[in-house]
Amino acid sequence: MRLSDLGEVKTIEIIKNLISRKSLRAQGLKEIKIGIGDDCAVFNDGTIITTDAYIEDIHFSLDYFSLFDIGQRVACGTLSDIGAMAGKPIALFVSALFPSNMTDTQIKELYSGMLSISNRFNCEISGGDIVAYPKLGLILTAIGKSKVPKLRSTARPGDCLYITGYCGLAETGRLVLKNKLSRNMFRESVKRHICPVPRINEALKLSKYINAMIDTSDGLSTDAFHISQESKVRIKIFAGKLPIHQETQQLINRLENRSIRAQTKVCDYQTKSFAVNNGEDYELLFTSKYENLPQEILGTKVTKIGRIEKGRGIFLIQNEKEIPLLPKGYDHFHR
Amino acid sequence: MRLSDLGEVKTIEIIKNLISRKSLRAQGLKEIKIGIGDDCAVFNDGTIITTDAYIEDIHFSLDYFSLFDIGQRVACGTLSDIGAMAGKPIALFVSALFPSNMTDTQIKELYSGMLSISNRFNCEISGGDIVAYPKLGLILTAIGKSKVPKLRSTARPGDCLYITGYCGLAETGRLVLKNKLSRNMFRESVKRHICPVPRINEALKLSKYINAMIDTSDGLSTDAFHISQESKVRIKIFAGKLPIHQETQQLINRLENRSIRAQTKVCDYQTKSFAVNNGEDYELLFTSKYENLPQEILGTKVTKIGRIEKGRGIFLIQNEKEIPLLPKGYDHFHR
Repeated sequence: MRLSDLGEVKTIEIIKNLISRKSLRAQGLKEIKIGIGDDCAVFNDGTIITTDAYIEDIHFSLDYFSLFDIGQRVACGTLSDIGAMAGKPIALFVSALFPSNMTDTQIKELYSGMLSISNRFNCEISGGDIVAYPKLGLILTAIGKSKVPKLRSTARPGDCLYITGYCGLAETGRLVLKNKLSRNMFRESVKRHICPVPRINEALKLSKYINAMIDTSDGLSTDAFHISQESKVRIKIFAGKLPIHQETQQLINRLENRSIRAQTKVCDYQTKSFAVNNGEDYELLFTSKYENLPQEILGTKVTKIGRIEKGRGIFLIQNEKEIPLLPKGYDHFHR
Repeated sequence: MRLSDLGEVKTIEIIKNLISRKSLRAQGLKEIKIGIGDDCAVFNDGTIITTDAYIEDIHFSLDYFSLFDIGQRVACGTLSDIGAMAGKPIALFVSALFPSNMTDTQIKELYSGMLSISNRFNCEISGGDIVAYPKLGLILTAIGKSKVPKLRSTARPGDCLYITGYCGLAETGRLVLKNKLSRNMFRESVKRHICPVPRINEALKLSKYINAMIDTSDGLSTDAFHISQESKVRIKIFAGKLPIHQETQQLINRLENRSIRAQTKVCDYQTKSFAVNNGEDYELLFTSKYENLPQEILGTKVTKIGRIEKGRGIFLIQNEKEIPLLPKGYDHFHR
């Protein structure tokens, strides 16, 4: 079957099965605690490792990203996986595909963007590789350390589900730029799209309260699905509790070309759907046995949006109805 | 200046300078011992990390590589950097660019190729990322451990220069396949091109005798240049000692379309040039204070080909003349 029919999640499943079946863990490989299947791989000594690929016209557009922006964006995205394990980043490795007509000035701008983020988290760029290629591509590997790595597989029935920041804010920013709307009217969302600063410090602060965690890179529905699958639990998400930024609401109104007033109700379901099915927010989605965590940590909003139960699947609770939620986040192969 | 004018070595130099100037090592980052600029980055606990990108039509051709071959090829290339530090590989991370029309059967073939190599060295595939892209690309990160990592920067005047295997054998194999010559007549070279098994076990065996080491991924002239630059030494290579496989000589004869007999002398310089300027052999190039290392280790040929002296630069000694050797290995940006 072709990958375009299989989709991303099933393709990853095939690779995971193949590797775990054919790999050597049974033969006494003790260095690796968690292999493929979480935000990072975890070694016995607490080293955590993640890798992410970013390709022009798929993950970013040169139409409205400067090279500095791109550098920031890819460093944020990769380091977010370290944050999602409640880890501290140490080193970043950059494999780059560069078009031959790029200049040294452009390379400097790109790496300055990456450094502006890595330096912020005391992380060093420690190696890499470069290849000439018609399109710009950046493949980053981040190494970190985590005392108690937070996994996707450790949610427990009875836990509350929390999320930092807003759902759908980064996608709001992307659509603002793509549709050439006023950046001034959509400052927060454009900022979250271009420079989604990873919630590393927030994760470290919250770590002791957390059971399971993931970052919202694929979209809430897909990322909650990962927790549900790996932890073998049922997840209820309360639609009314979803933290949706006013810029997201404004954008949906604008794109629908209706008056803001008439639209708030009409588009309520549409707004919720937008919020749960769009990714790249790089927020923390986590479960906790604590009912009343602070609503803000280090200046970042924290919202209780759901509940973990026995069973399987994800359900959106709206108007007292349970709507089954499918993982509809971004899929690289289904378009 | 454009990268096509700068070339690969200078582009890497620009990136290295930018990173070391703007990075945070001065602020007390103690985890990382060696950063960018060697085969691997080295952490204080002996963890070593390397990353390599392989892209269709640049690093391999689907015309004569099966997907299993490609899997083997990229795993060999990446793990070779672990070998070049005298390290043992532990884990491999695979970021993949997949064309959407690839099938699950093809994916399995590709990963089976990678697993056939990683399993051979007790190394696990522990994570990765997948992206849809028109051309196949594989970006691998390998993690290993080394008790005494061998660097490029620790050659000493007086050392002998040794190389394992043959120079130019992999490129011989590539040209055999490209020119559709008989695989049967060029078994060894085709094997070295398709599956250049990294010299990991050889490096571990030889480790105690070695001062500086690199693998010949870019070509002897370029890789010796790296040792010369990083160790601040002058390197003499004795042309008459270069281990050139008979298949390489046969190929050059064939491509020149002359009789084998007449050609041996005529093409002597051409053959040497071919041997020093073509990469992807993934052999060990190392310096040692020992004059008489065994000529074979674990079934792999070991040849003394040169001498380290005070000074700078690389020189090929032929007919008692010193010919300055420029780093003419493969450059991704200069074509």
